[in-house]
Amino acid sequence: MPTLDYGSMLKGVLGEDAGLDPDRLSQDLSERFTKAHADVEARRASEEMGFFQLPDDRALLAATREAADTFGQWFETVVVIGIGGSSLGTATLRESLLGSGWNELDAEAREHYPRLFVLENPDPHSFSGLLSRLDLRRTLFNVVSKSGSTAETMAQFMVVWGLLEEAIGADKVHGHFLFTTSPDSGALRQLASDLGIPTLPIPDNVGGRFSVLSPVGLLPAAVTGIDVEAMLRGAGEMVKRCESATLTENPAGLLATLLHAADTELGAHIHVLMPYADRLRSLALWFQQLWAESLGKGVARSGERVEVGPTPLPAVGATDQHSQVQLFMEGPRDKVLVFVGVENGGDPVHIPTIFPDVGAFSYLGGHSLGELLDAERRATAEALRRGGRPSMTITLDRVDARSVGALFMLFQIATVYGGALYGVNPLDQPGVELGKELTYGLMGRAGYPPPELPSPDPRWRA
Amino acid sequence: MPTLDYGSMLKGVLGEDAGLDPDRLSQDLSERFTKAHADVEARRASEEMGFFQLPDDRALLAATREAADTFGQWFETVVVIGIGGSSLGTATLRESLLGSGWNELDAEAREHYPRLFVLENPDPHSFSGLLSRLDLRRTLFNVVSKSGSTAETMAQFMVVWGLLEEAIGADKVHGHFLFTTSPDSGALRQLASDLGIPTLPIPDNVGGRFSVLSPVGLLPAAVTGIDVEAMLRGAGEMVKRCESATLTENPAGLLATLLHAADTELGAHIHVLMPYADRLRSLALWFQQLWAESLGKGVARSGERVEVGPTPLPAVGATDQHSQVQLFMEGPRDKVLVFVGVENGGDPVHIPTIFPDVGAFSYLGGHSLGELLDAERRATAEALRRGGRPSMTITLDRVDARSVGALFMLFQIATVYGGALYGVNPLDQPGVELGKELTYGLMGRAGYPPPELPSPDPRWRA
Repeated sequence: MPTLDYGSMLKGVLGEDAGLDPDRLSQDLSERFTKAHADVEARRASEEMGFFQLPDDRALLAATREAADTFGQWFETVVVIGIGGSSLGTATLRESLLGSGWNELDAEAREHYPRLFVLENPDPHSFSGLLSRLDLRRTLFNVVSKSGSTAETMAQFMVVWGLLEEAIGADKVHGHFLFTTSPDSGALRQLASDLGIPTLPIPDNVGGRFSVLSPVGLLPAAVTGIDVEAMLRGAGEMVKRCESATLTENPAGLLATLLHAADTELGAHIHVLMPYADRLRSLALWFQQLWAESLGKGVARSGERVEVGPTPLPAVGATDQHSQVQLFMEGPRDKVLVFVGVENGGDPVHIPTIFPDVGAFSYLGGHSLGELLDAERRATAEALRRGGRPSMTITLDRVDARSVGALFMLFQIATVYGGALYGVNPLDQPGVELGKELTYGLMGRAGYPPPELPSPDPRWRA
Repeated sequence: MPTLDYGSMLKGVLGEDAGLDPDRLSQDLSERFTKAHADVEARRASEEMGFFQLPDDRALLAATREAADTFGQWFETVVVIGIGGSSLGTATLRESLLGSGWNELDAEAREHYPRLFVLENPDPHSFSGLLSRLDLRRTLFNVVSKSGSTAETMAQFMVVWGLLEEAIGADKVHGHFLFTTSPDSGALRQLASDLGIPTLPIPDNVGGRFSVLSPVGLLPAAVTGIDVEAMLRGAGEMVKRCESATLTENPAGLLATLLHAADTELGAHIHVLMPYADRLRSLALWFQQLWAESLGKGVARSGERVEVGPTPLPAVGATDQHSQVQLFMEGPRDKVLVFVGVENGGDPVHIPTIFPDVGAFSYLGGHSLGELLDAERRATAEALRRGGRPSMTITLDRVDARSVGALFMLFQIATVYGGALYGVNPLDQPGVELGKELTYGLMGRAGYPPPELPSPDPRWRA
């Protein structure tokens, strides 16, 4: 299970002029967290935060497994059509647990599990590129939208439907779709009922960015052979570990409380998530949505106008040591880093002892790539510490279904604590409504008048 | 050629309380830029900024073409081993000009040009995953490191060398390598000379993050059939457009001056680059290194301690409307966005007029995916404008070699203007030295004592 080391957030470890006073962990920070914990427990008890229950929802798992075991037999390729909370979790599951080269493996190397693609952006170039490589007759499209009206998703769904009608005939099209949507409302739900398309539900009290452990992520995981039981077990273990109202015993509480304090007291407004593992790059993108959309709010729950929220910044080690770390080391002190280290990052890759006379790299011989990667992580964390720049480190023993499930839950729980600490509602996203309405107006949706968009002024063009 | 619309940075357009006074474009902002321009011209004249000359370096292009035309015939796959400035440009060229599915196409669809991979991170899992899918006997490894001593790159090079020795015998290994490195110094240059390995030079006055138009990017581009002449022509045209010392005539000057003013005067410390095109996602990552590593500095050129530099944040539209835009719309006013729109984003993908009774998405029928994507971009820019949040928009007519070459040069020139405006040296990266030295110490490199790294304190662990 993941552990969290947070010494490098604290005065003393970081030096005498930087970091948070460790005594506060049993004083005001502890009190602040206890209140946030109580607030979350109350909302959880009123069943607003359904993601806490997903690890124990055996009925949902059984329904997902049944769909996966049926369709998994029939199709060579599964394409998820979804965006944001409907795509980022699936991309994370694929990259962390199947590996980024999954779709390039042949059927035998995939143990005859299907290839898995995600269509998220309505970009004609990438859409056509993917579609041209698919055999539509052997492809299942899993359309994922809780509302059933997400424009980007519905547009791509309609194009695919039309292509399938041409390719296999109107009477067979419905057999290539599975909808993951609201259990009882929305246009996609209605369409499924009219056309006899199988569906999986997203529980009403599970929002998009908290839905990876619902059928949104479970279906693509189960259909590709990921151990979904282990993933849910890891998530359930993390729920248990985060039941404590004592700050220093609750890893999600520490993560949220220390990141919130770093933002509001140390000026560390930018929260960098930097796993040292290529496989976890998309986890950082999943976290980015979760943290940004949940905590970046203009109005507090009290009704007060606030404009708060940290900015999550994804990074990957060691790669970003050659991109962002110069700024992290020497730029403004507006960042806090959360490293993710992996103890067993893969089968060892030994560096041979060759070129003994070349001092610039002969020293690498006899080590392994994993040792180098781990040394880079420790060196970077230490260099930041010496500079008085705060960080934390999450350590996994390995990247597997259980640890990834635990990480998902750790960050989700930290996020709802974060909502309480910032005083905002972590479950809504009112700031994207205006953009949606303007898009509807531009696209001619009934009830949305065409907006007046000022043309770019040629005076301000170069 | 790209155009830059910057009205939404200005008071009036943004509302009366937000943005920069447009009169300043002919007053202090203009004077500030003129000084920066003169500073850059002086460093350019003293030949410190070699990237300006790359579009005109016919000898370098000829040498690269010759290597590409030779090796391009022989190999089915080219793997670039490099990191940071040695990999990000190549990844951008592949994704923007070949398409992200290039390596999944068969040889005919690739017109028999090779597949192109990049090995950047010494991550044993992703390294083994890629190597297991390659036929080593038909693979060329292009090792890219200006210094010839980058630990991550050299470690992977050594592993590959060892694997090739096993696979094809020690006497044939050298024929599978091409080194792109310093023309006259470093361990890689020496090794090439000892072992008879062909090389391409990175000019001494071209730093890693400014090297995409040198053989670092040109070789992978030329070998995969990218029109390198058009790319260099686009870059050269941008050099010309940015010769003017008049702010409003110089797009790189406007970009740098307005982003600098947004950071230092409006509190917009975070600079978001948000192309509305999947193909340009890696351009935003390339820009991230360029902007972060060049401008994030602890010491000014004057010698004064400063700790300055904006934080670049990559995003992709419309995808990130479902991730980061909530924060951009409602969170702290610490961001400025640079959108990239593409007029002709690909062959039109028509949305069929089906499901006429489903109001939630029937309105999409008859449009195209590209229309939707463009409407999303305009709607998001407009929503931000109405909220008084600043942005600029770069518009491309299409994503092709010429426009990508122009974009590379636009951002590179803006970056060196940025250095002058922030008063820092955009060409160095002293902040990564300590981390490198600690890594050397941990890995046992001669001359680097093992560092004392404090163990994580179990008191601060959960």
